[in-house]
Amino acid sequence: MSATHAEDSRHHLVVVGAGFGGLEAVHRLAGAPLRITLIDRRNHHLFQPLLYQVATASLATSEIAWPIRHLLRRRREVTTLLATVAGVDKQARRVLLDDGSFLSYDTLVIATGARHAYFGHDAWESFAPGLKTLEDATTIRRRILLAFERAEREADPARRKALLTFVIIGAGPTGVELAGTIAELAHMTLVDEFRSIDTREARVVLIEGGPRVLAAFTEDLSTYAQRSLEKLGVEVELGSPVTECTANGVVYGGKTVPAATIIWAAGVQASPAAEWLGVAADRAGRVQVEADLTAPGNPEIFVIGDTAAVVAPDGSPVPGIAPAAKQQGGHVAQTIRARLAGQSGSSPFRYQHAGSLATIGKRLAVIDFGRIKLRGALAWWIWGLAHIYFLIGVRNRLSVALSWLWIHTRDQRSSRLITQGSASPKPAASMPARASEGTEL
Amino acid sequence: MSATHAEDSRHHLVVVGAGFGGLEAVHRLAGAPLRITLIDRRNHHLFQPLLYQVATASLATSEIAWPIRHLLRRRREVTTLLATVAGVDKQARRVLLDDGSFLSYDTLVIATGARHAYFGHDAWESFAPGLKTLEDATTIRRRILLAFERAEREADPARRKALLTFVIIGAGPTGVELAGTIAELAHMTLVDEFRSIDTREARVVLIEGGPRVLAAFTEDLSTYAQRSLEKLGVEVELGSPVTECTANGVVYGGKTVPAATIIWAAGVQASPAAEWLGVAADRAGRVQVEADLTAPGNPEIFVIGDTAAVVAPDGSPVPGIAPAAKQQGGHVAQTIRARLAGQSGSSPFRYQHAGSLATIGKRLAVIDFGRIKLRGALAWWIWGLAHIYFLIGVRNRLSVALSWLWIHTRDQRSSRLITQGSASPKPAASMPARASEGTEL
Repeated sequence: MSATHAEDSRHHLVVVGAGFGGLEAVHRLAGAPLRITLIDRRNHHLFQPLLYQVATASLATSEIAWPIRHLLRRRREVTTLLATVAGVDKQARRVLLDDGSFLSYDTLVIATGARHAYFGHDAWESFAPGLKTLEDATTIRRRILLAFERAEREADPARRKALLTFVIIGAGPTGVELAGTIAELAHMTLVDEFRSIDTREARVVLIEGGPRVLAAFTEDLSTYAQRSLEKLGVEVELGSPVTECTANGVVYGGKTVPAATIIWAAGVQASPAAEWLGVAADRAGRVQVEADLTAPGNPEIFVIGDTAAVVAPDGSPVPGIAPAAKQQGGHVAQTIRARLAGQSGSSPFRYQHAGSLATIGKRLAVIDFGRIKLRGALAWWIWGLAHIYFLIGVRNRLSVALSWLWIHTRDQRSSRLITQGSASPKPAASMPARASEGTEL
Repeated sequence: MSATHAEDSRHHLVVVGAGFGGLEAVHRLAGAPLRITLIDRRNHHLFQPLLYQVATASLATSEIAWPIRHLLRRRREVTTLLATVAGVDKQARRVLLDDGSFLSYDTLVIATGARHAYFGHDAWESFAPGLKTLEDATTIRRRILLAFERAEREADPARRKALLTFVIIGAGPTGVELAGTIAELAHMTLVDEFRSIDTREARVVLIEGGPRVLAAFTEDLSTYAQRSLEKLGVEVELGSPVTECTANGVVYGGKTVPAATIIWAAGVQASPAAEWLGVAADRAGRVQVEADLTAPGNPEIFVIGDTAAVVAPDGSPVPGIAPAAKQQGGHVAQTIRARLAGQSGSSPFRYQHAGSLATIGKRLAVIDFGRIKLRGALAWWIWGLAHIYFLIGVRNRLSVALSWLWIHTRDQRSSRLITQGSASPKPAASMPARASEGTEL
């Protein structure tokens, strides 16, 4: 590779991260006079907006993820590299990989996204996993399904109750979507399948430190969402942040909720791009980019998506959602094209908010298009069609449509698999051992 | 649970293992006057005949696996238990679970299947994984896909060649199906997607200790299968068993093949049911059952499927395939029904061989129905329709049909995901470290 590329005099663009932002930049540069190397530490692009459906057994992993190099197979000037970036040498213009090798760049786009953050409580991660990768989703799926399995075998009423309590921390779209779907799983999908427990007795508790659910939406949509969740059986607890999180449950507002399953949907931390570049970051670790999305003092480096702190024309922060990342990827592509054409100067990025969407269970949604606000079943249909439209490839659209059809008509969720991990539903190490020796099950 | 069941005076059947045999026994006992507990250490029934398609990225895990308790949700007398069995107390008629609890039974059916066996070379397992569970399949899928990713980054020609060499040990149906599909993956599916390597240069080597591939088929079908594999680019090596298996490759017949990816399809070992029961087993660990499939000296214990050594009416051993296990499950159900009706005595199990099927890549297959033998494209269509027919549930049939349609018309495999494991394609620990420090990639 080095030999061929050393002779290649074309401008070399290195893009780190094949999420919505990075991939859009590469797509929008089709036909431009450069060569591109796209690096990701995963082999797949992930459709994150539907990740919660993998975590709740509604969709299969392969329905929302595609091999990156397959998506770009017809772009001969694009090399896809499965690799982990360890840093950036700005002086030498090199991206450093974790095996000690490097790639030289002329222009660099960093679009490495974010991970969930525990606000200084990193120890909570093992008890309350977050949801950012396919592995996160299958981990959460395993925990949810195993909790029901363990409850079916548990004789002690208090422990059984803890096993049937599901706590979701954070009531943004992901938290709301998880809570609604887990409630449906417990109160509808699984009802006929257990003999010792009544899954309808499961508690789903959604805890939010702020004053309302879906804070990014208008107040009446928040109220509607909360009422809809409560109709599904979700207990919504507002205004009290979680102060403790252990293998046994959570503490918030002085109250203790014993729970075997806790899911974290409360906050994110940007990837370490600011450290790589040695530039200023905000509290969430996001690079404070210039108006044209370049890193301060480095016009050849762009930072976009969840890794960048960007301000919208109205002064509000640009939200960490797929359409925002894609718009930024498109803007960067435009700037690079202009530079390759010899134009100097740069135009500022202007975010256009198309709308906010969130689902509540399998039939309701809220949509805020600015002037138009929708809620209920019609909103759900728009949400569903929009998401199917934005999925990549006809096959995935058909497959997801089929999965949803089955969920809606038969309440069967296609991916209820417990894989990777303890097959036997053993209690967590830190929970008191049950006195099961010699007892008949 | 103990309280309710202690008062339950119905005959208690415990079935261990929800594979084809165990599940069929439970299905065939619908309406019989007993209560049933079905134990499995997995939460899903697995359609093993298509497992190789998960390992080769053609199907998703959820397309060939179903939650056991969902399959039996309408059978109120059946309790499904996710648990690991540790032994059997024949005197007390108890199944012992690994957490120290137990279940009392009146009748016991053991249908716990088999794992792959390394004939005394257990150390080979880490280098040459076998294919029996969903986790096995995703492990093999990850290794195959990572080998191409690592080859794309590898500058050293010898190491690159090893990374692009795939060795399959054992040329039964699984080995033949894996070899054919990996060859197609390398020579067709992936061709456009890499920039430094030509995936068509990948070697797929199928090594068989015996004199021919598909030994259970007639000689001319074996010859046809071998020729078809060779046309797909598979190197078929017969008559030399593998004598060494390391992280660097395999040795057979005095020849060394450096290979980063090795898959074991050469033999199986029954689950430890014979040890649990303290009865005689054959070399593969299978219980040598009576003619009515009961364990010697224990008419209340049945052993079926891959865990039992059964002889067909013509004196040949009953093969370890799904139809054989299902027939045995049906026979056991019949015997139990007769006993519950007060009939004494028992009828011997008579295996009826319906036929043998194996595919070679995505367009050819061989079928041996006894008098009728088929090969080629027609055989493939019959194979495909038969497998879709035997899948459980309309949704899975549609989904698998859709996946196959895409493979056939577009050569796109839907599940090319590298998950669970090292994201970065690092070399195996025992391979010499590459001199990559400071080299430009």
